[in-house]
Formats: sequence, structure tokens, C-alpha cells
Amino acid sequence: MDRPEIILAPGPTPIPPEVLLAQGGPLVYHRGPGFGNIMREVTARLKTLYRTDRAEVLLMTSSGTGGLESAIQNVFSAGDEVFVPMAGFFADRWKKLATSHGLVVRTVDYEWGTKIRPDDVDAALAEHPVKAVLLTQSETSTGVIQPIRELAEVANARGAMVIVDAVSSLGAVPFEFDAWGIDVAVGGSQKALSASPGIAFAAVSDRAWAAHETATLPRFYFDWSAYKTFAALKDPENPWTPAISVMQGLQAALELYFQDGVEAALARHERLSRAVKDGVRALGLDLFGEGLEDNWTVTAIRAPEGIDADTITDRIRADFGCVLAPGQGPLKGKVFRIGHFGYFSELDIIRGLAALEMTLERLGFPVKRGSAVAAAEGVFQERP
Amino acid sequence: MDRPEIILAPGPTPIPPEVLLAQGGPLVYHRGPGFGNIMREVTARLKTLYRTDRAEVLLMTSSGTGGLESAIQNVFSAGDEVFVPMAGFFADRWKKLATSHGLVVRTVDYEWGTKIRPDDVDAALAEHPVKAVLLTQSETSTGVIQPIRELAEVANARGAMVIVDAVSSLGAVPFEFDAWGIDVAVGGSQKALSASPGIAFAAVSDRAWAAHETATLPRFYFDWSAYKTFAALKDPENPWTPAISVMQGLQAALELYFQDGVEAALARHERLSRAVKDGVRALGLDLFGEGLEDNWTVTAIRAPEGIDADTITDRIRADFGCVLAPGQGPLKGKVFRIGHFGYFSELDIIRGLAALEMTLERLGFPVKRGSAVAAAEGVFQERP
Repeated sequence: MDRPEIILAPGPTPIPPEVLLAQGGPLVYHRGPGFGNIMREVTARLKTLYRTDRAEVLLMTSSGTGGLESAIQNVFSAGDEVFVPMAGFFADRWKKLATSHGLVVRTVDYEWGTKIRPDDVDAALAEHPVKAVLLTQSETSTGVIQPIRELAEVANARGAMVIVDAVSSLGAVPFEFDAWGIDVAVGGSQKALSASPGIAFAAVSDRAWAAHETATLPRFYFDWSAYKTFAALKDPENPWTPAISVMQGLQAALELYFQDGVEAALARHERLSRAVKDGVRALGLDLFGEGLEDNWTVTAIRAPEGIDADTITDRIRADFGCVLAPGQGPLKGKVFRIGHFGYFSELDIIRGLAALEMTLERLGFPVKRGSAVAAAEGVFQERP
Repeated sequence: MDRPEIILAPGPTPIPPEVLLAQGGPLVYHRGPGFGNIMREVTARLKTLYRTDRAEVLLMTSSGTGGLESAIQNVFSAGDEVFVPMAGFFADRWKKLATSHGLVVRTVDYEWGTKIRPDDVDAALAEHPVKAVLLTQSETSTGVIQPIRELAEVANARGAMVIVDAVSSLGAVPFEFDAWGIDVAVGGSQKALSASPGIAFAAVSDRAWAAHETATLPRFYFDWSAYKTFAALKDPENPWTPAISVMQGLQAALELYFQDGVEAALARHERLSRAVKDGVRALGLDLFGEGLEDNWTVTAIRAPEGIDADTITDRIRADFGCVLAPGQGPLKGKVFRIGHFGYFSELDIIRGLAALEMTLERLGFPVKRGSAVAAAEGVFQERP
């Protein structure tokens, strides 16, 4: 029997039935009060999620990468200098995005899996001031949650704007747009919120709007001014025809997310992350990356000696329909990754760990059956 | 009782239940054989629809406008010269898009509603050669279907590439990518195919790929090379996480569209268009725009003396939940528009005409009840 695959990858994340129904319902016309109400509700909830009163939140039809490019196009002119601390695949995406638009990119290079040191960024900015620092909160290639608060603090002190890829972190780990002094933060519908992919969002500070005024990079589809103008209509709209069905699903996803509230959702992510990590450790596998206690979105796991990590992801998908993520870049074949952010319950995690146990045993790794599940149960039984 | 609005606007068009179910079904993971099959089938059917064996068809997550911008970014360098015959809102969008990227835009200006004269374009290109001509097949602001075949012929003879906005025409009126010598044609999921908005597609000729090789405008999210590379994988993918649910819906929409086949779908559009036009004429209203017999996507109608066109669209929406489109630009308040492309049946058109009859009567216009409906029935009864 064909069953849907079980996605334990870092996005898209599992879509709740309420969201599927909303995106499968009749389409609301995108100009008028019906869609205006969706825009208003989604924007207000995203502002709560970003923890901002001051920022404008814009909704664009694209993947997260499109949202990131919008930040480059709207804030910069060719030749502007930016700083990117390089510690994984998505930091590299920032670098490529900036370079492709003619920005001058300064970097400090870390081994993948490293937590960026605010002191390094401070020293680099002291030596060479830049217009902005481009950061990635959840470096999904390694699982590391970077210390955005501390990094933003040093960047602000050095007069640099702070632009954050929060695509795979917003809603899963703490984020404080206003309190941390963030200028742009980009998120996506298909990550911690568990809507379908297709909508990216950007929170934009006053300082970023001011930069936007003088930024000369060519832009049209992602021109924030157009989004701002249409969002200010009596019935808020998008300038171009948006992915209406995805927006309907996103509205439903936020409704679910806010049933528990932000604090409870973050606590759930912490618990699920710990269960995965304890479970995997109980199998005798090693975890990858620094700051594991903070890394609530993705767990990167070193493949055991003698087993290629891609064999594990291929086999668990073939045998159990369970989609984990392979290693990227220098980690290809060396690590595999479990995504555990979004609409996961405790039992979703447990079934994934059971599939991993059986897969590793089939690949000849000595597994004590039930041990990963038992460790995860240990975490869940602590629950107050 | 809250009912879904009846959309008789030029896109998004009505979504068939089969499409709603597909986009509300469990999400297929976007890397792997499941999504690869969707990509393969959708791309193959779009090639049939474009009437191309030679072009590469790329699928991007964005509105149609994003697809148009992709053509600018991928084919041109700043300072390149293009020619845009200006005869409506969407020609103006081409001009704005090109200008925002530093292209030099040469134009010939027509009154809105005019059918562009190939001789004018020929004369302009003879006087001043350009790299490309940017055309709009269905100028939805006026209802006019522009003579792309003839325009492409003169452009090709003058050595200019031909780039076509076919967003609101592909699948509704004849289009022949290979035979007409088109270089780029951009389409969208939410128009004649009646899928949800969120996916744009571009067919790209060899000549356009060659231009792409030397084009230097900054690009990343819409970089066609990335789409080409990922589409060539064993299991075709998108480079970035696509709007998966919209793609699932698009697959279902194409399945429906191809049940009848392209020829039958085009004939249906011609018939529905004629029924709308005969119906509206039977009410004593005047149609707007040249070449009415070719204009199978949208009918622009002059508001009767003494009635503002926006009053008609507001009132029919308020009273009957029927969404027509208002006039744009210089036509605001003067014309209103009925979209009749996509998944419309004969009776969908008839109910729209009945709503229009009742609305006009309520606004004090002398209506012979049933006359528009009778005229439409006249067209449908001719059916073989």
C-alpha cells in the first residue's frame, strides 16, 4: 500500500490535516476583504512570533532563498561590503547570494559544526567596518543554532546592520527581533510552522527601510516597497498574485501553533530535540556539532565507522518510507540529519527512532533493540 | 450562508475539485522519485502545451511576474536595448521590469485596446535594432490577444529575440513556441490551467540559453542555470524548496486539461468567449478593444453611460459573490472585465451573465431579463 512518506528532514515539515484542508479549500480571491483578513491575521501572528512591535512583516511567494535574496536586493547597492561568518552550507548561500549581486563579502571561516564566536566577529568588524553582517540562525547543514543575540550585539556596537536567515529556526528556537536589535529576519512557511512551502516572510526594521531608500540593486518582484504599499491597503493585498492556497494553509498552521502559544511551542521543540539526541546516543552513535543543548531544530549524527551516512538515509527511506536528510558539503557520507521541528508529537519522534534502530541493525550495526526509544521515553516521562 | 465567491476575473481562475484535492493531499517530499515524477509529467505536458520539442521548460515558485523578471535577469545585461510595443497594463509591466534592471527600453505607444501592428514593429526595428522584443500575448487589461506569430516573424527577420508574456494566454489561445520562433515564453499555474497560483514557468530556446551565457544582470533565486541543473537529475528537482502543494495541484490540473486535449480546450475557450460577447451585446452594451474574435481570455466591456464601471463590479460582487475585474489605468471606471479562461463550463458563463443582467437592472440600466443568457444559449446550441 502506498503511504505518504514520513518526513523527518529539516523542512518541509509534516503538514497537519487542518492545514491540508485549508489549502485544499475553495480559493479566496486575492483582492478583497476575504484575503485581506488572512493577510492581517497572518502578519499579526508572525509579528508576535518575531517578537516585534516595530518591524514591518512582508509576505512573498517564493522559497526561503527568494526571501533571502529580497534582503540583498532591497538593502544593498553593488560594491557594499558585508561580513559573513562561514560555518556551514547556509552561510555559504549568503555568501553566494551577496557575491552574485556584486557585494564585497568578507568572511571568517570556521570548520562546519562550529558555533560562531562573537569575539571573532567583533575583531573583524573592528578591523574593517561593513554595512551589514549576514547570519544564519539555524545552520541546518550542521544542526548548530548560532548565537544570534550575542552576534547582533557586537554587530550593533560596531554600527553594522544585522540580517538573519531565520528560515529554519523561527518558531522553533527563541528569537527576539526588537530586543536583539535585528534589522532583517527572513522566515518560511514550511519550517517550524508546518505549512506548505511557497511563502517567505521578511521582518524589516526602520534602519533597513532607511537603507532600502538608497539601495540601488535592481529589483522588481521582490521590491519591498511594493509589498509595503499593497499591505497598507484597507484590505491588505500582495502586489502580485500570491500563492493563495499556501497562505490559507499558513493561516491554519498559525492558528494551530498559537493554540499552545510561542513559549509552549519552543519548550516542545527543546524536549523533542533532547529525545532525539538521547535516543541516538543510546544507540552508541556520536552527535555532530557544538552547542547541542541549543540545537532544537536538526540533529546531525556521525555515521558509525564503516557505514556510509547516505546508505543509512537511503535504506531508512526505502524500508520505512522515512525521509532523513543526508550530509551536505564536506559532511556528505559522514553525517546524516534528523529534522525535529514543526508539527511533531512525541510519538512521531519515537517512530522515527524505531525506524533508525531497525535500519542500523539491517546494515550490520550492533543495535540493542528499543534502546533509542527507551531513552526518548525517558525524556518524555520527565514531563511535568 | 458563506459561499465561495464565483471568480470570473482573469486569474486566479476557478480551481476544479480534483485540483483542490491534490493540493490538499499529503505532501510529496521534494527530493526523490515521487516529486521527480511530478516534475517529469508537468514539464512534458507543458512542452506539449507550448508546442515545443526544442525548448527547456523551467518551473519556478513565484507569481507570473516573477517568471517575467526571470526572463529579464537571465537574458540581459545592463544597458541592453529592448523594444516594447505599449498597448496596455502588462506591456507597461514589461517596461517597468526592464527599466528597473537598467535596460534601455524603446517603445511605440498605442492607445489601450489596440492590436499592435507588425509593420510598426518592423519599422522601429529597422530604424534601431534591439536585442529583444518584449511582447504580451493576452493584454488582460484590454482583452486584446496580440498577434504574436506576426510580431515574432518581423522580430526574427530583424534579428531580435522574442520574449513573450504568455501568463494569461497559454492554454487558452493558440501558441506555437517552435513554429513561431519564440525565445522565451512565460506562463503561470493559475490562469488557463486552473491550478492555484504559485508556480510560474518559462520555456527557453537555444538562442535564449546562448544569451544567458553572457548575460550579467545579478540573479540567484531565478537563475535558470540552477533550475536546468536540478531538472536534469535522475529524479528531477527544483533548486530551492518549491511550492509542492501547488505543483501537486498543477499536475492534477494538467491531467484534466489533457483529458480533452489542447485543440478541444482552445475550441472551448473560443466558444465561451463568443457566448460572453454575444450575451453582453444582447444587453445593449459595447465591447472594448480590437480583434474581438481572437480575444478568448477576457472581455472588456464599456460601462453604460451614467454608470461607473467600478460600481458594477462592486455591486455584482456584493449581491452575487461574483468577482469580475475592474478597469485598469486609463480604463478605470470606464470598462469592466469578465475573465472566461480556465475551467469554465457553459453554465458557469450563463450564471455570470444572469448575475450581470440582474446587477445592471438594479443599477437602473434597462435590461430585458434573460436576453444575455438567451444569446449565450444561442452560441452553445450551435455546438455540433
